[in-house]
Amino acid sequence: MSAPTFDAFRYAHEHWDEVAWLSQNTNHIGPAGIVQEALAEAVRARHYEGYPFAPGTPELRALVLRDLGFPDDAGLQISAGGTEALYMLTRALLAPGDEVIASDPSYLIIHRFVELAGARSRNLEIYAPPYRLTAERVRDAISPTTRMILLIDPLNPLGSGYPAEEVRAIAEIAHDHHLTLLNDVTYRDFADRPTLAATFAPEETLTVWSVSKNCGLAGLRLGGLAGRPDLVRKVARFNTNDLGVNVLAQAAATAALRTKPEWIGELRRQVRANQERIRAVVQEVPGAHLPVFPSQANMFCIDIAETGVGPEALQREMLVTDRVFIRAGSYLSPRFGERFVRVSFSNPPGDIERFARSFPRAVAALRTGSTVRG
Amino acid sequence: MSAPTFDAFRYAHEHWDEVAWLSQNTNHIGPAGIVQEALAEAVRARHYEGYPFAPGTPELRALVLRDLGFPDDAGLQISAGGTEALYMLTRALLAPGDEVIASDPSYLIIHRFVELAGARSRNLEIYAPPYRLTAERVRDAISPTTRMILLIDPLNPLGSGYPAEEVRAIAEIAHDHHLTLLNDVTYRDFADRPTLAATFAPEETLTVWSVSKNCGLAGLRLGGLAGRPDLVRKVARFNTNDLGVNVLAQAAATAALRTKPEWIGELRRQVRANQERIRAVVQEVPGAHLPVFPSQANMFCIDIAETGVGPEALQREMLVTDRVFIRAGSYLSPRFGERFVRVSFSNPPGDIERFARSFPRAVAALRTGSTVRG
Repeated sequence: MSAPTFDAFRYAHEHWDEVAWLSQNTNHIGPAGIVQEALAEAVRARHYEGYPFAPGTPELRALVLRDLGFPDDAGLQISAGGTEALYMLTRALLAPGDEVIASDPSYLIIHRFVELAGARSRNLEIYAPPYRLTAERVRDAISPTTRMILLIDPLNPLGSGYPAEEVRAIAEIAHDHHLTLLNDVTYRDFADRPTLAATFAPEETLTVWSVSKNCGLAGLRLGGLAGRPDLVRKVARFNTNDLGVNVLAQAAATAALRTKPEWIGELRRQVRANQERIRAVVQEVPGAHLPVFPSQANMFCIDIAETGVGPEALQREMLVTDRVFIRAGSYLSPRFGERFVRVSFSNPPGDIERFARSFPRAVAALRTGSTVRG
Repeated sequence: MSAPTFDAFRYAHEHWDEVAWLSQNTNHIGPAGIVQEALAEAVRARHYEGYPFAPGTPELRALVLRDLGFPDDAGLQISAGGTEALYMLTRALLAPGDEVIASDPSYLIIHRFVELAGARSRNLEIYAPPYRLTAERVRDAISPTTRMILLIDPLNPLGSGYPAEEVRAIAEIAHDHHLTLLNDVTYRDFADRPTLAATFAPEETLTVWSVSKNCGLAGLRLGGLAGRPDLVRKVARFNTNDLGVNVLAQAAATAALRTKPEWIGELRRQVRANQERIRAVVQEVPGAHLPVFPSQANMFCIDIAETGVGPEALQREMLVTDRVFIRAGSYLSPRFGERFVRVSFSNPPGDIERFARSFPRAVAALRTGSTVRG
């Protein structure tokens, strides 16, 4: 039985080293050694006693722009995680009464930032094929108060990726209607053929990037936004990081991005193998299914509505009994959160095998009321 | 000759290891070994691959509150540097038309955040004895639109400290007029007898703290605010760090705060010795003097108005020729910035000796036009 006050995050952090972290789309594969070496060197150098160079180191800035395929003179703001870039751009560009076209499910922290600015998100329901926005629905949703379109590609939590033609069509809508196109590309490196919206609407697009997932640096908090220089400047007026971003995070991100071609292929291969394994497990559990497969990201949703088991109870049972941490859907969908759990899989195979044992056991136990905790 | 486009920060960062950093009040003494060891251990543990526990680790939270002398149930928000705490509280508590009583000179980043919220700061001129606010002047400055008093104690850049009786009197004004008292205590550990405003106005005071200066961690970006729980919650609605603060910063701050009693005395002793040494140097330079001595912080201003040398030119000359980085006053005072430079002195004695050679030489050279760069 799931007590409403159970704090899964506190519990998981208290048992960190025992937990298989499949809950936050974090990357526990790597490039671990490259990052550890860069961090150790930065710790020895003690530059963290002084402030960062506020714009970010020139090498990091160059690497980020090169990684995005943007020109050297593109606007770039580095922030303490992509989340802060989202925070500052919503503050800078939205006013009370404005509307943002978004989806449900979605990465709801962005929606909350929209609300902090006094604006509101119009959440198109996408928990049905193709499990993402379409240009047609976006166009139909535009109203006189629409100011922004939120295009998360690949999409957290579903793992859907946008075909190039759909990205182009949505970008053209943003251009034609003078809307800001917020293109969150946090999971881009896991996709087969990622397409940046900035390719089609360079004037309107703000591209929010992060090294949390691709480089395995979520706890170091480094990301940012890139786009048209004057638009980035307009956002940067509301910069939350006037004194710059953690220097160790910059050192780690620099080392990881510099070497990305060497390790990204193996990371992607493992992520794909892991999701195949998870699919095989889910297929054996009556009532459970995957809305999106293969995922273009490092996570997807498992629909458990027909199992008779609730997401919160399942999250708790797997965490407390098996130390396998997945995420209940309520965090990601006001409308459909009771239907699914989200599981991420950029983890060593051992973590996935723990999921493979835990998920069927926990579903069965909750169905029959025979959980370890009763 | 000082070209207006000279970027001192870029230059200093490009020559990091050659520079004596007396420019940003950063602490290059320590506790270096304690911090390096904690960071090395945290790098080995790889917890940075996952997200932080968003509120901050329980141990860090307990240490911060204990360090402030606050009760365990006080409100506490941890942010990426004290700066972000200032950013979020100005956004949360100020509205267009509101006024904040502040000073000139001051730590002007706060004033800019006030303006971002649509409010304005009323800057009382304090570049004259006692070189700080007084309760009487604060009371006289209150208008119907006043919402907040900014009490930076000790005060950056002058190094002035507030006597307990003055803190009490200002706190009582905040209480009587229902004003938020923003008590920035970044430099508290360098003061002889620091007094928290929260002692006298616990309901009205938000205490902004940081480990950048006392613990030598400026580049890791960790600080926050503490105060009445419901007031902190009101601010935290505008949290810029929804996913938590850099885990390595938390590890370093935890180690430093846990051991503070062991090293803070020696740090203070060295800082006091350093400012004595700087005073002796300044006394030998005609036209230069210290408005405040001894400083209650790890910095003070050197007034150079009577030397005939400008702060920007002096900053550049000392940096480029001698790799000694001090700060021109314009960063810290709209009204008096042309009169002074700021120098910080929580540095190894070798850095101070480099200042001792550079400052008289550079002033003399600029006076006669015989700078190395012409």
